[in-house]
Amino acid sequence: MNGHLPAAGLQLRSLIKRSGELELSLVDVDVPAPGADEILVRIEGSPINPSDLGLLLGAADVSTVRRAGTPDRPIVTATVPPKAMGAMAGRLDESLAVGNEGAGVVVAAGTSSEAQALLGKVVAVIGGAMYAQYRVVKAADCLPLPEGTTPADGASSFVNPLTSLGMVETMRREGHSALVHTAAASNLGQMLVKICLQDGVPLVNIVRSPAQVTLLREIGATYVCDSSAPTFVEDLGKALAASGATVAFDAIGGGTLAGQILAGMEAAVNAKATVYSRYGSSVHKQVYIYGGLDTSATVLNRSFGMAWGVGGWLLFPFLMKIGAEAAQKLRARVAAEIKTTFASHYTRVISLDETLSPDVIAAYSKRATGEKYLINPNKGLGGG
Amino acid sequence: MNGHLPAAGLQLRSLIKRSGELELSLVDVDVPAPGADEILVRIEGSPINPSDLGLLLGAADVSTVRRAGTPDRPIVTATVPPKAMGAMAGRLDESLAVGNEGAGVVVAAGTSSEAQALLGKVVAVIGGAMYAQYRVVKAADCLPLPEGTTPADGASSFVNPLTSLGMVETMRREGHSALVHTAAASNLGQMLVKICLQDGVPLVNIVRSPAQVTLLREIGATYVCDSSAPTFVEDLGKALAASGATVAFDAIGGGTLAGQILAGMEAAVNAKATVYSRYGSSVHKQVYIYGGLDTSATVLNRSFGMAWGVGGWLLFPFLMKIGAEAAQKLRARVAAEIKTTFASHYTRVISLDETLSPDVIAAYSKRATGEKYLINPNKGLGGG
Repeated sequence: MNGHLPAAGLQLRSLIKRSGELELSLVDVDVPAPGADEILVRIEGSPINPSDLGLLLGAADVSTVRRAGTPDRPIVTATVPPKAMGAMAGRLDESLAVGNEGAGVVVAAGTSSEAQALLGKVVAVIGGAMYAQYRVVKAADCLPLPEGTTPADGASSFVNPLTSLGMVETMRREGHSALVHTAAASNLGQMLVKICLQDGVPLVNIVRSPAQVTLLREIGATYVCDSSAPTFVEDLGKALAASGATVAFDAIGGGTLAGQILAGMEAAVNAKATVYSRYGSSVHKQVYIYGGLDTSATVLNRSFGMAWGVGGWLLFPFLMKIGAEAAQKLRARVAAEIKTTFASHYTRVISLDETLSPDVIAAYSKRATGEKYLINPNKGLGGG
Repeated sequence: MNGHLPAAGLQLRSLIKRSGELELSLVDVDVPAPGADEILVRIEGSPINPSDLGLLLGAADVSTVRRAGTPDRPIVTATVPPKAMGAMAGRLDESLAVGNEGAGVVVAAGTSSEAQALLGKVVAVIGGAMYAQYRVVKAADCLPLPEGTTPADGASSFVNPLTSLGMVETMRREGHSALVHTAAASNLGQMLVKICLQDGVPLVNIVRSPAQVTLLREIGATYVCDSSAPTFVEDLGKALAASGATVAFDAIGGGTLAGQILAGMEAAVNAKATVYSRYGSSVHKQVYIYGGLDTSATVLNRSFGMAWGVGGWLLFPFLMKIGAEAAQKLRARVAAEIKTTFASHYTRVISLDETLSPDVIAAYSKRATGEKYLINPNKGLGGG
């Protein structure tokens, strides 16, 4: 072991009490010495992804946020509506560290040559508890970033890049030749547009405003359908027919959209059919729900035959399924293209203290498409 | 070729006109001479399965049924509501023969030894157009029934027996160890109870009345949950926990039941979990919708994590997927147990003429669980 080893660092915690109260706080945690095959990373960038928000705020009502505690050690509280407490049962009274992924500088390393080789390098890391000044991880688990990459550049190297690559990989492995993406103007959606352009994969983008149509057209998207347009169903039908897409990845989850996509796929398939089957086409049509921007019920008006599926899709089970070698290929592509295909854009960079500011919470909890916040846990604390 | 060869026979036809009218009729069709490897079957039993009703009546409003034509050649008409015409687009102005499966006596056979061996035998057949006096099929496609089996005994040898066997086979192939079935008091549901008892597979039966609970208890069912009971959710939760079921087959399709089943499965899995994951358990939970007794939307309140799927399930794609050898094993079991495990019970046996009677249509179109009609196309016509 060598390098600079701090004694302690701040970590953000989220706690939902049995009494129905969310409590966010900053706690001092000891910084452990890295083991032989481990590294200590000073985290300088960690995004607030939708998946982080779920853990950070739980089912709390953001309009009830209050800040107390001391200026140095703020404590934010908010009320969790009683009817939402059931879904929180698994985490009650447990103080949880937050932050799926991040990037930073390796400030100490274990004795192994693999760990030592990373000292002073900028690396991307994943594994939770990244909303913290320091984080120890296995050297083998980090993603070393190319020379000239900053922690802010590399902060989002896993969730969005691997999710968008995973969608294209799932499409291929399950025998489809084109795909649909909803909430497509998101950071992830823009990555997917770039991947599909590079790979020559037809992609139908569903967005929610004319401005988002413009945004995606500007980065080269071919099929962009605006669900706010009166011609949406017709536009979607044409794009599905032209692209041949039979699998969709849906970040919205609630409402009738998943079913509309299936119905549009079925109509596109049947338009080419020559024989009537009352069970519909035999072409399997699939929608994977990977997010829940709309937490209301998924409503499927079953007008798309019998060869269909709707289900959950998550990155980590997908990576487990494809195996270490295939996953490594995806990671290598992310590192190589981190400033181009997989570049993320942030609305604002915030400190841990600002992460607990009611105004800032109100802003990032909106989950507005295309708006994204980056936490720098060492901002204003002498680290970054 | 030898045996008795009639010149012509009656066949039931269903037609939906572009004008929005359903027309059911009986037509005289030529009876072809069977080819070398074919047999001619005098159909004496063909059930009205829910899947047949879909083709027979389409989206017609049964309350508008009128009978005209002549006593010998009745013509029944009914109105298809304009908003339902979209779903009928694939079949407009095409006169369709109806009846998925049936059984009868082989009255003529082609020259091949396989065909000749069936002459005079009672066989079960599948392939559509069974609501007819005569049907030519490949000898290899029929299921010869054991000595002493009548056409009425064997009329339902395919759809329900193979569907219920297919459910258990799907459960095994997809790594589950117990299953759930809805509308479980049906003919198919009773078969499934018997299969699962024989095979030692835990089965959670969901029924819709106390009388149906009694019915299934009497044939030995262990877990029976009545969705009309105030304790249903609790009862289902207990049965899911006790059985460990993580796959369900749902004949209802519409409403919130599929989602309730997934939520109950997730709760049962989580009750045994030791670590909190905000994505829910990693155990895949699946509901296959194989029928549409409730044609309203499937409403999924997503409170069951991310490892889930809902999709369509159909017998024929399943049989294609498992291959000819595996399918043949299932068929052999059906023939051997046609009077026990796979015995069907019919509310009434009706002629082709009665099939076109408004009163009878009103009765069989209700799709009442446990009520089933058998058509004998040769009843009252000198055949049966």
